[in-house]
Amino acid sequence: MLERVLYALSDPVRLSIVRQLARDGEASCSTLDRGRPKSSMSHHFRVLRDSGLVWTRTDGVTHMNALRRAELDARFPGLLAAVLMAPEE
Amino acid sequence: MLERVLYALSDPVRLSIVRQLARDGEASCSTLDRGRPKSSMSHHFRVLRDSGLVWTRTDGVTHMNALRRAELDARFPGLLAAVLMAPEE
Repeated sequence: MLERVLYALSDPVRLSIVRQLARDGEASCSTLDRGRPKSSMSHHFRVLRDSGLVWTRTDGVTHMNALRRAELDARFPGLLAAVLMAPEE
Repeated sequence: MLERVLYALSDPVRLSIVRQLARDGEASCSTLDRGRPKSSMSHHFRVLRDSGLVWTRTDGVTHMNALRRAELDARFPGLLAAVLMAPEE
């Protein structure tokens, strides 16, 4: 649903995760957390997953995250591109 | 700021106001409220104004609202177009 995607993107931490995944492709939770508290990060990852922006696969003990870019571009054409194009403030 | 615009758009009532303004141009608060409670509508209009999505002018006793389309398109190219293009669910 569009509103959930927009809500997931409306937080600076989650937006920075999405930017990083768009730049680097797949990344582990520990790469993405940049020292932020685990409890708040697990909330952010849940919101990102529930919105359909991010999927997570388990690789041994590591959680690897990636943008669901193709699905998003198919459902909401141009949305992610516009968000990623906006300057970081 | 991008996050505030995304947050403002992440609520179904606010998104429907933005869609209606995009379709009809300027509209009064009473045209846009569709019978929803005044207190919640004034909150929604405040979020829309604070994010920079909407401006309001006073015409006598009527508040007229419009999308700040040109400013938004200049700051966040393609964003509003992508949001408005997404199907209503």
